[in-house]
Amino acid sequence: MIHAEDRVLVAVSGGKDSLALWDLLVDLGYRADGLYLGLGIGEYSQDSGNAARSFARDRGFELHEVDLAGDYGYDVPGAAAATHRAPCGACGLSKRHLFNAVAVERGYDVVATGHNLDDEAAVLLGNVLRWEAGYLGRQYPVLPEAPGFVRKVKPLYRLAERETAAYCVLSGIDYQVEECPMAEGNRHLGYKDVLNALEDRSPGAKASFLFGFIDRAHDRFVDEADEERASLQPCARCGSPTTGDVCAFCRLRDRIGAVAESVDVMPRERG
Amino acid sequence: MIHAEDRVLVAVSGGKDSLALWDLLVDLGYRADGLYLGLGIGEYSQDSGNAARSFARDRGFELHEVDLAGDYGYDVPGAAAATHRAPCGACGLSKRHLFNAVAVERGYDVVATGHNLDDEAAVLLGNVLRWEAGYLGRQYPVLPEAPGFVRKVKPLYRLAERETAAYCVLSGIDYQVEECPMAEGNRHLGYKDVLNALEDRSPGAKASFLFGFIDRAHDRFVDEADEERASLQPCARCGSPTTGDVCAFCRLRDRIGAVAESVDVMPRERG
Repeated sequence: MIHAEDRVLVAVSGGKDSLALWDLLVDLGYRADGLYLGLGIGEYSQDSGNAARSFARDRGFELHEVDLAGDYGYDVPGAAAATHRAPCGACGLSKRHLFNAVAVERGYDVVATGHNLDDEAAVLLGNVLRWEAGYLGRQYPVLPEAPGFVRKVKPLYRLAERETAAYCVLSGIDYQVEECPMAEGNRHLGYKDVLNALEDRSPGAKASFLFGFIDRAHDRFVDEADEERASLQPCARCGSPTTGDVCAFCRLRDRIGAVAESVDVMPRERG
Repeated sequence: MIHAEDRVLVAVSGGKDSLALWDLLVDLGYRADGLYLGLGIGEYSQDSGNAARSFARDRGFELHEVDLAGDYGYDVPGAAAATHRAPCGACGLSKRHLFNAVAVERGYDVVATGHNLDDEAAVLLGNVLRWEAGYLGRQYPVLPEAPGFVRKVKPLYRLAERETAAYCVLSGIDYQVEECPMAEGNRHLGYKDVLNALEDRSPGAKASFLFGFIDRAHDRFVDEADEERASLQPCARCGSPTTGDVCAFCRLRDRIGAVAESVDVMPRERG
């Protein structure tokens, strides 16, 4: 996943997984800095940012920050209103784009995220229920570097949610304990519930689902991911790799900009 | 699935799916006889057998019968007690073996089973949660004939449980409405519950899970099924195809026979 000489950028949300990961990586001797992305989700984002900043300050770690509103002219609630879609789509897209873009720009070799077993199993369930062959081909603890992409790794994918929480408690790490208020009722959390119910009936079900996929099924879907990777070209707007002319991040920003005026009004009228 | 000149053996349980299937096949002009397997599950089996017999008698259809106890010296409750396992394993194994064996023996070209969308999606979920590559390679609406195996088809795999029930009601078919009492709390029903919950949240989820697998994923697992098929040889005991020396059906009967005396006593003592 990570070589001794790599410069690692940890995607830091202020939650238990990303802070545990950052702590662990530095403890193991890796050169790991953090990147916090301000999503503009009210008090939740403020508290998350504060947790990340205090953590970094107390330990003398270097934390980069990007603010969606200040740096890119939108925030997650605005994107959701403008696209008339669940906020999680725009949020995930923004994160994927910006963590990679900042890593490329600042010379990091690898982006490390705190995805745990519960997260990965829930994503896998969603991908399997719709048999998203391309997503299944890309769902793996290590995604190799490619032109315009740094390597992506998920070192905690074998640990359950409760284990990273326990690590934080035992290590005295103060993290944002609230769940994102905009995620309430989303599909991903629904899949987590389903898997927790299956785990209650058959302990070990979650791990055998995820690890079985990695061991015996993932390889069968890589052709889709390989094909996609082969067709990547630089975005005409920002230069990031994309399979189209303009990348999804730039298209999202266009879309939000195009309807920005009505968006300012509509959420209030609706509320 | 079925050619006009094929002789079809319908696996008849007395429930809605198998009776609807048999009715439909004859209505469409196929030469379809039934096979009812007496599992020895008390009143449930008696009522199921009666439903199958009345259905056949009223329509002048030919129904074959095999009785596990009378013809093979065991029943499903006895098999469960002897193997110290859930009864569904021994039951499924007995059905798979005997439907094929009777079809081969009596010159049928194809065995048709009433598996519906709900059944197939639940089986798929179980296979996917454990990434059973061999089972995934064999899960398909048509399994081609092979030495010692007749073709197996599931013509109703696109219809929901409620649709086959509606067909029976509208066609005046009296079927066994009870669920098997031994299946209560088994994994398969648990998977059905999970899928029903997902369907409630996202209507169409069940169909897109099953049909997506058939369209975009099944092919990726056929190598496992092909390898297994290539290594089949006749069972040293009964001649049925098996990957070992003695087939699973004969091994099951051995195991039950070996402990038959204690089995006669234990279930009563336990009860």
